[in-house]
Amino acid sequence: MRIALDAMGGDFAPGPIVAGAVQAVAADPELHVTLVGDQAKVEPLLPPSADGRDRLSIFHCTQAIGMEESPVVGLRKKPDNSISRCWQLLAQNKVEGIVSAGNTGAMVAGGLFLKRFLKNVRRPGIGAILPTLKGHCVMLDVGANVSPKPEHLFQYGVMGSIFARHILQRQKPTIGLMNVGSEEQKGHELAKETHALFNNSILREQFIGNIEGRDINKGLADVIVSDGFVGNVVLKTMEGVFDFTMKMAFKELLGALETERDKAQKALQNLVNRYDYSTFGGAPLLGIDGICIICHGSSDDRAIKNALAICAKYGRARLNELIVEELEATLPDSTIEE
Amino acid sequence: MRIALDAMGGDFAPGPIVAGAVQAVAADPELHVTLVGDQAKVEPLLPPSADGRDRLSIFHCTQAIGMEESPVVGLRKKPDNSISRCWQLLAQNKVEGIVSAGNTGAMVAGGLFLKRFLKNVRRPGIGAILPTLKGHCVMLDVGANVSPKPEHLFQYGVMGSIFARHILQRQKPTIGLMNVGSEEQKGHELAKETHALFNNSILREQFIGNIEGRDINKGLADVIVSDGFVGNVVLKTMEGVFDFTMKMAFKELLGALETERDKAQKALQNLVNRYDYSTFGGAPLLGIDGICIICHGSSDDRAIKNALAICAKYGRARLNELIVEELEATLPDSTIEE
Repeated sequence: MRIALDAMGGDFAPGPIVAGAVQAVAADPELHVTLVGDQAKVEPLLPPSADGRDRLSIFHCTQAIGMEESPVVGLRKKPDNSISRCWQLLAQNKVEGIVSAGNTGAMVAGGLFLKRFLKNVRRPGIGAILPTLKGHCVMLDVGANVSPKPEHLFQYGVMGSIFARHILQRQKPTIGLMNVGSEEQKGHELAKETHALFNNSILREQFIGNIEGRDINKGLADVIVSDGFVGNVVLKTMEGVFDFTMKMAFKELLGALETERDKAQKALQNLVNRYDYSTFGGAPLLGIDGICIICHGSSDDRAIKNALAICAKYGRARLNELIVEELEATLPDSTIEE
Repeated sequence: MRIALDAMGGDFAPGPIVAGAVQAVAADPELHVTLVGDQAKVEPLLPPSADGRDRLSIFHCTQAIGMEESPVVGLRKKPDNSISRCWQLLAQNKVEGIVSAGNTGAMVAGGLFLKRFLKNVRRPGIGAILPTLKGHCVMLDVGANVSPKPEHLFQYGVMGSIFARHILQRQKPTIGLMNVGSEEQKGHELAKETHALFNNSILREQFIGNIEGRDINKGLADVIVSDGFVGNVVLKTMEGVFDFTMKMAFKELLGALETERDKAQKALQNLVNRYDYSTFGGAPLLGIDGICIICHGSSDDRAIKNALAICAKYGRARLNELIVEELEATLPDSTIEE
């Protein structure tokens, strides 16, 4: 398994990015990682002799797109940027997967420009793995496609279901449609049409109908289908509320406790480490011919290591072949009529 | 100030609804509350002699729309339902405001059917008051209008700004547009057009541009403008994440602490009481000629009391007159050209 890792992408790059790669190759003896970035900055960060050091290489490039830079402008004005180089290595089959904690918009746009979609895929979507009371679920799309059509959302259900089965280990994943109420006739046209599409498809037994924002963390659905605008706002809202709530909890407890203050602080810190959305290990861009994992900008070495591991797991499970097969089975007539 | 309160609306109605009304009239000597609902169920809940008892009356009606019932079907098939009766009392000027913790969809639809919009208002929107690190903000719309036009969102900015100034006591409220990134060109067409509308309006000095989901609780904006679909999903997601995080915190702390377990539990419970989204006291339906406050279905007596107090405050501040004036000043030409 060969993965290109954007060494220049992320709030703290290249430090934690390179560190994550070093840990990942040490943990997985079949993993080869190409660090894509400025050689002069990356090389000094590589330990001269570490387990798996021979499976780490550098692909030198001179430019990087900033985290806040306009994706379109960045991709156009910086032809030698690390994100475009990752995509090119994938297109040339020099790697099977790419991972970046850099500018999400540029990462997605880089893929859409290349148009390397899997057969029958209309629009790729980003799948975010979220914690629930029952384990994890995947929500997609969370930002690749802000104005989707019902067919796109239906395909997200198909792809998300395969992801949930093979990566989240759900036998028969349930699929819920993000909406403003549980009744069938709720929501805007997009939601209503998508609802009908699922109900008339071969996925209807897995489809549990509409779910609401408060159902996500309860684990009501294994796969949550959403347009990219709503999904992105939801993902970032979750991050914000978690952060806000933990800040308040720390403050409240520090004021109330005396002798066990340190213990309480440590317990809450455990919780932060476990659920911190920024270190959740990366979201796959599903529907691309190849494997593409997008990480949070503030990813630390642990998050990068996790993302590389998910990328490898995704490749070994041959998810993309399954996606092509299943889309073939549902499209075009069978989607509506069955 | 006369308010009609839907005594039959809410998960636990009429118990906590009537109790909230009893507390509200005791706290505010100028408040008159008409309890709209089944007299046989409401009357036994009224204490024979309590402070303000003479300012509580009952408007008898025989029907109630269920919390999960289809709003359209409910309103049509149950002409004597408590929500429609509240709206009628408002339309007949027998009350200045109405409050309900019942079926939100029916409450909004009841208002839209009557078409009692304030002058120049295109579509009413629900404003939700949310906790932030800096106090509170108001987000609108959170569910009345799931497919708005840019002009509707602009009007939400105008109305939200007036609400924030007079109810949240912000001198010059900042206005943010809910979007998937901070750059101007981000998002779908609705977001881009709305962004341009604000930037070219007399509100441009208050407009801070796009804000993301993670900015809400930070208090980055006093007014958050959103379409009703996104706003509704965000509101319910916040509720779900808060609930999930607190559950995890309780569990983690109970396992870690020994001697100060009770103290920690009490501290966290304080936090739940303070930030529980279900008891936040009600969201105004802004743009209606009259005052309409919509409460969470699981509202307790405290939440109902708060909602009645907000309704009274809203009326005394003459917010609706200010909304009409300000919309007049921004429309129609001044919106675009200034």
